[in-house]
Order: sequence, then C-alpha cells, then structure tokens
Amino acid sequence: MRVFIAGIDGYLGWPLAQHLAARGHTVGGVDAFLRREWVAEMGSHSAIPICDIDERQHAFREHFGTELHFRQGDLLDYDFLRTSLQDFQPDAVVHLGEMPSAAYSMIDAAHAAFTQQNNVIGSLNLLWAMKEACPDAHLVKLGTMGEYGTPNVDIPEGFFEVDFRGRKDSLPFPRQAGSFYHWSKVHDSNNTMFACKIWGLRSTDIMQGVVFGTQIDTMEDDPRLRSRLDFDQCFGTVIHRFCCQALIGHPLTIYGAGQQTRGFLPLRDSMACMTIAIESPPAAGEYRVFNQFESCYRVDELAAMVQAEAENLGLQVCLKHYGNPRTEAEKHYYNPDRNHLVALGYEPTTNIRDEIRIMLSDLLPHRARIQEKADILLPDIRWDGTKARTSVIESY
Amino acid sequence: MRVFIAGIDGYLGWPLAQHLAARGHTVGGVDAFLRREWVAEMGSHSAIPICDIDERQHAFREHFGTELHFRQGDLLDYDFLRTSLQDFQPDAVVHLGEMPSAAYSMIDAAHAAFTQQNNVIGSLNLLWAMKEACPDAHLVKLGTMGEYGTPNVDIPEGFFEVDFRGRKDSLPFPRQAGSFYHWSKVHDSNNTMFACKIWGLRSTDIMQGVVFGTQIDTMEDDPRLRSRLDFDQCFGTVIHRFCCQALIGHPLTIYGAGQQTRGFLPLRDSMACMTIAIESPPAAGEYRVFNQFESCYRVDELAAMVQAEAENLGLQVCLKHYGNPRTEAEKHYYNPDRNHLVALGYEPTTNIRDEIRIMLSDLLPHRARIQEKADILLPDIRWDGTKARTSVIESY
Repeated sequence: MRVFIAGIDGYLGWPLAQHLAARGHTVGGVDAFLRREWVAEMGSHSAIPICDIDERQHAFREHFGTELHFRQGDLLDYDFLRTSLQDFQPDAVVHLGEMPSAAYSMIDAAHAAFTQQNNVIGSLNLLWAMKEACPDAHLVKLGTMGEYGTPNVDIPEGFFEVDFRGRKDSLPFPRQAGSFYHWSKVHDSNNTMFACKIWGLRSTDIMQGVVFGTQIDTMEDDPRLRSRLDFDQCFGTVIHRFCCQALIGHPLTIYGAGQQTRGFLPLRDSMACMTIAIESPPAAGEYRVFNQFESCYRVDELAAMVQAEAENLGLQVCLKHYGNPRTEAEKHYYNPDRNHLVALGYEPTTNIRDEIRIMLSDLLPHRARIQEKADILLPDIRWDGTKARTSVIESY
Repeated sequence: MRVFIAGIDGYLGWPLAQHLAARGHTVGGVDAFLRREWVAEMGSHSAIPICDIDERQHAFREHFGTELHFRQGDLLDYDFLRTSLQDFQPDAVVHLGEMPSAAYSMIDAAHAAFTQQNNVIGSLNLLWAMKEACPDAHLVKLGTMGEYGTPNVDIPEGFFEVDFRGRKDSLPFPRQAGSFYHWSKVHDSNNTMFACKIWGLRSTDIMQGVVFGTQIDTMEDDPRLRSRLDFDQCFGTVIHRFCCQALIGHPLTIYGAGQQTRGFLPLRDSMACMTIAIESPPAAGEYRVFNQFESCYRVDELAAMVQAEAENLGLQVCLKHYGNPRTEAEKHYYNPDRNHLVALGYEPTTNIRDEIRIMLSDLLPHRARIQEKADILLPDIRWDGTKARTSVIESY
C-alpha cells in the first residue's frame, strides 16, 4: 500500500515510516519540523540525539532499499497539502501532524489559540484535501484517550447505545477533555465523523493512550533510525519524564495524589496497532473509533515500576509528590473498552517493565544531555492560567 | 448592569442593544462589520435598508438618552478584545460575534477553514480575555439548536443522566451537527464548558432555534433603528427567505421533502430570552445550557403559513419542492426540551402567524430591493462539495 504520513518527522511518525517500509509498504509524508521548534521553545531538547530529515532519508534508503518520499510544509497551507496528496496518491493517510501537548496549550491565550488553530484547521484542511485529491483513501487519524476525560461510567469505543425516556439511539459517546489541546482533538474527531457522513470518506479515529518507549525492531543499532524522546513538562509524557529523572537522580515528579489512571502502550504496540488499522481499512463512508492502549496504569504504579527497574541498574531513585499544576480528578473511576483492535489481531505487550528496562538502557548513554536540562524538570505551567514552579507536597 | 455585546452591528446584536438600553442597562460592544461583507460576497444585500454604525449611535442616543459604547475590531485580535473588556468592565458579555451560516461554511475548503478559525479562535480569545479582564462577568454565549442534530431521542438542555452498564453519570448530551458552521458552535460550547470548569467562569450557553422577524417594540417608526434582514442562500434563514420570495412572486423554495423540523422563535422572543439569561446570571463556575425556541415547526408548515399570510395581503404564492442541496434527514424525530427559560419567566409568543404578517408588511415597501437580487434566490452551494443551482423536483 501507499501510506502518507502527516508529521513524519515526529516521535511516532518516524518509527511508523520504518515499520511500514519493513512490511513492504511505500511511504511518503510531510512535516514542518514544528515539534523540534516547540521543544526548543521549552528550553529543552530530545534526550536521544536525532538527525535531520536528509540524514533520515539516507538511512531509510540504506536500511529499507526504498525511497522515503518527503516534502517540507505545513498542513495550514492548503494548496501544499492538496498537491502533496495529489502527487503521492495514497491508499492510507496517517494524521500525526498535530501539536500534542496539553500543558503547551494551557500556557496562555496565544498558545491556546495556536494549538486549536494548528490542530483544527490543519485537520480540516486534510479532510478537504483528501476529498479533492484522494477521496477513496483511508484516513487514520490520531485522537487521544484524553478526549473522553474520566467519566464515572465505562468508556466505549466512540459510540454507545442510549435509552433515554423510552426511546433508543446509537450516539457518539460524550467527550470531557481536560485541556485546550485535548479539546482540539475532540473538535477534530467531530469534524472527521461529519466528513465521513457527508462525503463518504472512510476513517479510523484512534483514541490512543500515552505512548512510551525508545525502540522498535527496525531500529537495530543505527542511531540515525532512532526517534526523539522528550522529557520537558510539555512534550515529555509521564513515563519518559520518570525515566529521565531516574537517570540523573532527580525525584520522580508525581503530580498530586498520583492515582490518576490512564491507558498506556509501548511504542512498538502503537506501531502494530496503527498498522492493523491501515491494513484493514473501513468501508467508504465508515467512521470507526478504536481505543488504543495496552493497559491502564496509575501514575504512582508507573513511578514504582520505573524506580524498581532503575534500582536494578544500580540507580538510587526516590518518588515525591508535587503540587498538581493541572486541574484534574486525582482519584476516579476508569474503565475504557479496548475490543476493536484485539478483534483485528492486536496482541498487547504484556510486560511493560521490560519496555521500561530497555528504555532506561537506551537513555543511559545520554545522561549528560538530560542533566544539562535539569532546571526544566519541574513544571510551572498551571491550568489556572498562572505560571509558578510546583514544589513538593509535604503531606505525602 | 453593564452589558458588552460582541457582534453588536448584527441582526441580533443591534436590536439587543436597544432592548437592553430600554430596560436601563448600559450597553457597549464591538463589531468588525464582517456580516456586511459576507452578504456582499453572496451578491446580496439586506432587504431592509440599514444605516452605518455612526448613524446607529446617533439614533441610539436620541431614543435612549444614553451612549452606545462602540469600538470597531475583530475578536481574532486578542489585545483589542482584552483591552475593550478591560475598559468597559462588563457585568455580562453577550457573544454574537460569529459567522452564522451553515451554507457559507460548506462552500469550499477555504470557507470551512475561515468559519472554524473565526468562530473557534474568536470564542477562545473571548474566554481568555474574560478570564484576564473581567473574570466575574457572565458570558451569554449563543450556540444553536443545530448543535444537537436530529437524534432519535428527546433533546435535553445540554446534559443528561446516563445509566451505562449499571453505572451512572451526568454527561454532556452528544452533539451531531450538520455543517462545519454548526460544528464550530459545538467546538465553542465544549471550550466554554471547559473554561467554566477550570477557571470558575460563569456562562449561559444558549442553544437557540432559528430567529425570524423584523420588529421589536423599541424600533417604533425610526428606520435607523431597524435591523438587517437577509434572504440569500447563506444568511437568509428559511422564514426570511420564504417571506421575501412571497413578496416578489417567486415560488417558496422548500428543500426536499420539507418535513425537516426545527425550533423557531420570533426576534422579540430572542431578545426576551437573552435578557432573562443576562438578568439571572449563574453562579461562578457554573456552565448552564438553555434550549431557546418558541416552538418546533416543519418547513412545509412554515411555507403554508407564509403563503396564507401573503394571500391575505393579496399576493399569489405557490410552494415548490427543490432538490435539497444539504445532506440532512428530511423526516425525523424531533423533541427538544425547553424548560430552563420558562422556569425563569419566558412566556413564548404563541401566534407566529402574527409575526409573519408584521414581517410581510415591513418588507412590502422594499420589494424592489428583493426583486433586484431575484437571481440569487435558488441555492447552489451543496453539502457534497459541488456547486450547482438546485431545481424543482417534479415528483412533489
């Protein structure tokens, strides 16, 4: 198949290009390199050194014996996007080209507006461009489990049967996102559902959990194939932050009670799931939602796992609770479904401690790069709109 | 109270300024005059002549003995918006500053992107600007009944009790909008709900039906106080289009089967309802949803009412069914709640035929202005993304 990846230079885009090429697919994509800019804006850098797109293309050709078709450009540039799709003629389009940080979207009015404009208009442009350039292609759109929030009922996959005052309907499951970023993804999901309905586009909307890890099989020992790994407050997700903190002897920063529960999955599972979606497209006009995660974990459980694996490497690690900069429930019911991908053949990685061990080993040679940025490890972006660095809560 | 109206030059904004002034409130607002531009872009003009903002301010001062505080500017200009709120220090902010046309948002990729950017980012800016400049003020935000679509169950006011697999929660009622415009309003509702939750803003989110009519009591006989009335395919809503068509002997253009059912309300009811919301603000942090309409009507019923009233004026009117340019259910269940406003004192106008009669009389002197634009009465913007003028369906 011909697969087009929007955001092909990112944490997920670059491994996905490799994974798909290894399976014999033809891969192309676009990127505006904004992730690299945003992380620099946070005063940080990737813990794992990454090379530029030219070197990536060279390495790709060497390893997979095929071209990585790449164009630099922004999804907000509609003509660029339409022409890129027109020229590539994809069977599937994977949309990873969004600003992915909750905290970044909460910095101030300008960052909130940037986030929603970038994500909503970029995704809307993609819908129109596909309609015009490749209406039969399958849109694999990345949403987030965070769209659902933490309702006090089970979370189905996108839709549920409603019995209300004696009448029935199948309705979209209500979303209760927790940041302007997460809401931008809800807006995108809604626009995508509508485009499928009126234009007959086909789409898989993936409500993905938090992805973690440094490795997929194709990367072997070539550092040019490695993907970025961020640890700043905006682009470093929780397991990544914990691993980087553990390596430099910084306390693991648990926000608040630490009983927040989310779905997580290793990078290799994310690749496997997206591939399943790509290789089993829905019918024309179908909009299907997959909840995509390996399992649900509490934040304090994850911290304990990172601590245990780091201690096996001879590192001393302590856990500390910090004032939660986010407005969120710190203790809540959480039980999302995850049936659609399993029905299509997804076999979850069950031992995430192995993944954490591999990640720590991969990061070990780069301790100095993390240490260099030790002063940005504590968050100062608060959901209440103020900016103040958090500190340890004594009561834990 | 001090009431700030975003979109104060529009069809609803201008009468609302008058209605509130007549009740003794201090009124200010902003407008970028975009509605005037959009209607010109459609090759049309208001059936009722309207004067510019300077003349409106003069007339306002004469009639109400008080100043209409006005600044020209765009909600996308964050600093302008924040400063305007800072200087005016409102008790209530009424948000009418959005692009309100479903058809306009479906023209092409650029119009869809414009609609969502203008509405979503403008509204998001308003939330942040209120948080910074007047966090205790009450946001009266205009949504639309169209956010709900046409589910096969009753439509509650914003939230409903869910019993799912034996657990319960109160959740936002799922939205199923029918155009990129309607989705932009859903996105706004979601962002507003979130801002109330995290920042303690207070908001009334009004899911308003289709407003029609030319008159509120304050307008008397001064033509400078009249509000615009559009009849083009984008900015002319269905009763307005029917009335204008009836006056020049054009068949009333029923789209498809004509059994589409929606909530409608006269202009004077819209003013009364918004005033009730303004004068009974919610508590800090509260996000409440009002469904706002007088009653539900089928499109073919409305056509028959306009026909009957026009015939009373001696006009010959025929009804015709045209190919529906929209993708929508033409026959469906529709039963929205409307309890919150009634509980606060809203007394619906029950005789909408009287309103239609007044509207026809008001429009009668302006037949030539409508006739001049007779060539734009049939829609050519289609939901499937093509552009082709619709024609009569012979089977009706």
